Amino acid sequence: MSLPPPVIAVPAGHHRPGSHVAVTRELAEEVPVALVYGGSTQAVMMASPCDLEDFAVGFSLTEGIVARPEQIRRLEVLPHPSGIEAQMWLEEDRAEALAARRRFMAGPVGCGLCGIDSLDEVLRALPNRAPAGPVLEAGQVIHATEALRVWQPLHDRSRAVHAAGFLLPGRGVVLAREDVGRHNALDKLIGAMARQGIAASGGAFVLTSRVSMDMVQKCAMAGAGILIAVSAPTAHALRLADSAGITVAAFARQGSFDVFTHSHRIPSEVPDVA
Amino acid sequence: MSLPPPVIAVPAGHHRPGSHVAVTRELAEEVPVALVYGGSTQAVMMASPCDLEDFAVGFSLTEGIVARPEQIRRLEVLPHPSGIEAQMWLEEDRAEALAARRRFMAGPVGCGLCGIDSLDEVLRALPNRAPAGPVLEAGQVIHATEALRVWQPLHDRSRAVHAAGFLLPGRGVVLAREDVGRHNALDKLIGAMARQGIAASGGAFVLTSRVSMDMVQKCAMAGAGILIAVSAPTAHALRLADSAGITVAAFARQGSFDVFTHSHRIPSEVPDVA
Repeated sequence: MSLPPPVIAVPAGHHRPGSHVAVTRELAEEVPVALVYGGSTQAVMMASPCDLEDFAVGFSLTEGIVARPEQIRRLEVLPHPSGIEAQMWLEEDRAEALAARRRFMAGPVGCGLCGIDSLDEVLRALPNRAPAGPVLEAGQVIHATEALRVWQPLHDRSRAVHAAGFLLPGRGVVLAREDVGRHNALDKLIGAMARQGIAASGGAFVLTSRVSMDMVQKCAMAGAGILIAVSAPTAHALRLADSAGITVAAFARQGSFDVFTHSHRIPSEVPDVA
Repeated sequence: MSLPPPVIAVPAGHHRPGSHVAVTRELAEEVPVALVYGGSTQAVMMASPCDLEDFAVGFSLTEGIVARPEQIRRLEVLPHPSGIEAQMWLEEDRAEALAARRRFMAGPVGCGLCGIDSLDEVLRALPNRAPAGPVLEAGQVIHATEALRVWQPLHDRSRAVHAAGFLLPGRGVVLAREDVGRHNALDKLIGAMARQGIAASGGAFVLTSRVSMDMVQKCAMAGAGILIAVSAPTAHALRLADSAGITVAAFARQGSFDVFTHSHRIPSEVPDVA
């Protein structure tokens, strides 16, 4: 039994005014993925069925379940009749900490708010791990989302998959991951970087999506200083980025971008003329 | 203490090659909203702080917590230091059913999978409530997302808010709701329709977003027969729509669309020439 492919061909009827033809479209697959620690399911997420080892490591890091990938002693991604299981076994002290945390969880669920029981828990204290740098030239930010395009083979086929990439000053996008869920794409990238020993502090995350609160949380947990996105941030995400020391550059498309927080990491090349 | 506005103005630095100016951008707010039944929090969702009575009713319906809005005896939307609470009190038998359901929930959480404990629960049986009709002309589907545009004041201001609208054959979009989350926009619409006594069986839902699995689930729970979306469906969402009897028309933009399931509700006006 193997994992399903991330993109599959599906028949459709294509309508235009006065015409109707049978066509085949490549569409993204979406599979329930259970994140299982020591035999207990912690979360079930709808995800693209690829790079799931990266996903499991990244989720474990951004949810604070482990601090380093080595704390996951064993990781197996296995097909299941109803989806896919990423089964993990943790170092003893991490397993105990998770068990203690689980005892406080009961019932409520949320989207973008994994494991939140009530409003009192929403504003979880984020680490301010943002590094002093790096510094990016405005020109590199302008071209960042273009540079991400070559890392989007699933999107090229299916037109509905998000990507998260990692950009290094002067080098461009050096790694990226794709997923139907924007938060999963970032978790996959963070996991892939951790497994390859690439520190987030030296570069910027580049997203094809909006910047919602959870994207800033993941960025903070990974210790990156800059988040660049094609689309808009929410006001809430900016307040969080401001307090976590993270630079948010958004609307990065069509030759321009806006910087909203901690703009010292993207200095203006010309004097402010406003 | 009042609710925050759904769109707020934020200062930014706008960069273009060789220029940098100070600007003000209107951005979408995103607030944690707790759905609270009889004093117990069932879920916390990040949402746009508007139309939250509609949201609470729609969420209660699409999650199967109630079958009709009248089963919610009292509903109050109240500010909370960490967000907003939608406090609901249910009819006795519904409150008991929810309490019984909550006893089976523990720990795990998911996105787009509210209240799922494990992979075994993912494939929840969907009601096949899809009506025989309605029948839409291809031309009306082609123009559906255009017709939704006038119902998107928050998106016009913030460029980052999804909408879900309800289209009636020959009448166009008669109601719509907006939210930073596509699933919340649809829940708000479904709640607004239930509160106004508009049956979903007579028309089509129109979405500015992708069609993921959870959108089809909500459509099935609301009893609508047609889902029209600007962007792509996932393969999983189509399998679900097929089994629930729902017509999915997607890529509805730039003068054309593709129909993937139960195409009898959108008959072709010309013979198939493929």
